[in-house]
Amino acid sequence: MTSETAGKVICAGLGPGDPELMSVKSWRAIQGARHVAYFRKEGRKGQARSLVEGLLPEGVTEHAMEYPVTTEIHFSDPEYNRMMAAFYDSWADTLAEIAKTENVVVLCEGDPFFYGSYMHLYTRLQGRAAQEIIPGITGMSGCWTATGQPITWGDDVLTVAMATLSEAELTRRIQETDALVVMKIGRNLPKLRRALQAAGKTQEAWLVERGTMPSQTVQKLSEIEGEVPYFSIVLVHGQGRRP
Amino acid sequence: MTSETAGKVICAGLGPGDPELMSVKSWRAIQGARHVAYFRKEGRKGQARSLVEGLLPEGVTEHAMEYPVTTEIHFSDPEYNRMMAAFYDSWADTLAEIAKTENVVVLCEGDPFFYGSYMHLYTRLQGRAAQEIIPGITGMSGCWTATGQPITWGDDVLTVAMATLSEAELTRRIQETDALVVMKIGRNLPKLRRALQAAGKTQEAWLVERGTMPSQTVQKLSEIEGEVPYFSIVLVHGQGRRP
Ligand SMILES: C[S@@+](CC[C@H](N)C(=O)[O-])C[C@H]1O[C@@H](n2cnc3c(N)ncnc32)[C@H](O)[C@@H]1O
Ligand SMILES: C[S@@+](CC[C@H](N)C(=O)[O-])C[C@H]1O[C@@H](n2cnc3c(N)ncnc32)[C@H](O)[C@@H]1O
Repeated sequence: MTSETAGKVICAGLGPGDPELMSVKSWRAIQGARHVAYFRKEGRKGQARSLVEGLLPEGVTEHAMEYPVTTEIHFSDPEYNRMMAAFYDSWADTLAEIAKTENVVVLCEGDPFFYGSYMHLYTRLQGRAAQEIIPGITGMSGCWTATGQPITWGDDVLTVAMATLSEAELTRRIQETDALVVMKIGRNLPKLRRALQAAGKTQEAWLVERGTMPSQTVQKLSEIEGEVPYFSIVLVHGQGRRP
Repeated sequence: MTSETAGKVICAGLGPGDPELMSVKSWRAIQGARHVAYFRKEGRKGQARSLVEGLLPEGVTEHAMEYPVTTEIHFSDPEYNRMMAAFYDSWADTLAEIAKTENVVVLCEGDPFFYGSYMHLYTRLQGRAAQEIIPGITGMSGCWTATGQPITWGDDVLTVAMATLSEAELTRRIQETDALVVMKIGRNLPKLRRALQAAGKTQEAWLVERGTMPSQTVQKLSEIEGEVPYFSIVLVHGQGRRP
């Protein structure tokens, strides 16, 4: 992973949403940045960028990495794969170029190595630029803290699953765990509800929207209707051993 | 969770070990503390306390909460349970008493609501003192970042299991997941090795000792022998979808 570049690509985990939950290390990296890069949906400000508002130093150069596609094409479509691969290739080139002479800080929500988009740049930059990853508080930690109930006790098993899995698979995962976290919910909410129902866990499920952000909500999943925002997590707390 | 106390009990997540990985919020809470409390083994300095060395303000009052028992009695022994319950009861009383007039900051490794000892005080303090929990970067995030490989991709399932589970249970959990984290290893290492072997995952397993601390080590589990320290995590990385 060593390389001959003078600069490096620093991926700074930003934590779940509240800027104060960023690590001191990420905070300092951002305040000292000459270049920052962040992912966003076209035409949006982007959550990562919003989170560092007021923290960026004067004169910093910003690189907005706009996804060529988000949910318009399904990820199983080869065209989705092709477009995303080209997008990551091209930004890897740009970041490698900057790192030849200077540091560039990539802003990443939550913890970068936990289902993060940066991972796709990380693999592409291997051997081309020095990289440093600063871990962050995950979205799920922010969300279970927001419920006011610990997620796991004693020897509870925790399962983290994406709502993009099949209904049968989700049902089985929910049945076989003590504590549960489900991410990437969006359009998969009706399917996730059926899986929770089949596993007999509807009453135990909590939904946290925008955990630790100003507009955070914490509700029992059974008490809400309609759509949920991108930043949504479903949780079932473990009930393990406790003296 | 409201209460009539003038102060509150603030549980500050400290992150995985590197003090710079503490959140800005925990950092500030600690620097402004008049009382701090932390768990430790009798006769030791304690990891939580060591981590804030140089950060505590002058004149702070320290409360070392020394476990009456750690591994001398097995946790399935009723005597273990009785002693630990009495210990938590008594410290809950002390913290509630302090919170009548002042804030007290409890230092907690990693993320407090993720298998943390503070959870046992948290339940006991309900309705007796106002409490605030500051999440932290988990030990596992620090450890997978240290391996230089992302833990989960696409729709990988992540299973977090304690090595205190039975060998059969561990084997099954290892077999049925994409990405794996095993904590609380200690004396359970031989059992965990057998379970990994039975699940055909010996070659994929990494061991991280003291992740993000100065004495951190990252090794393939198959390449190490002998005992491992308390701060040890075993990881198997997911291999999911990536464009
Ligand atoms: C691509 S994953 C990125 C996860 C991120 N790297 C982390 O460590 O949390 C995006 C998913 O994270 C979840 N998420 C992240 N932060 C969240 C928050 N503050 N509130 C609710 N959900 C969140 C949502 O389920 C969302 O679909
Ligand atoms: C009682 S649990 C506490 C977990 C903590 N609340 C967290 O969020 O990481 C203790 C276990 O955490 C794991 N652990 C925590 N921090 C670690 C680190 N920096 N390196 C290795 N293992 C760690 C070890 O497996 C240890 O047995």
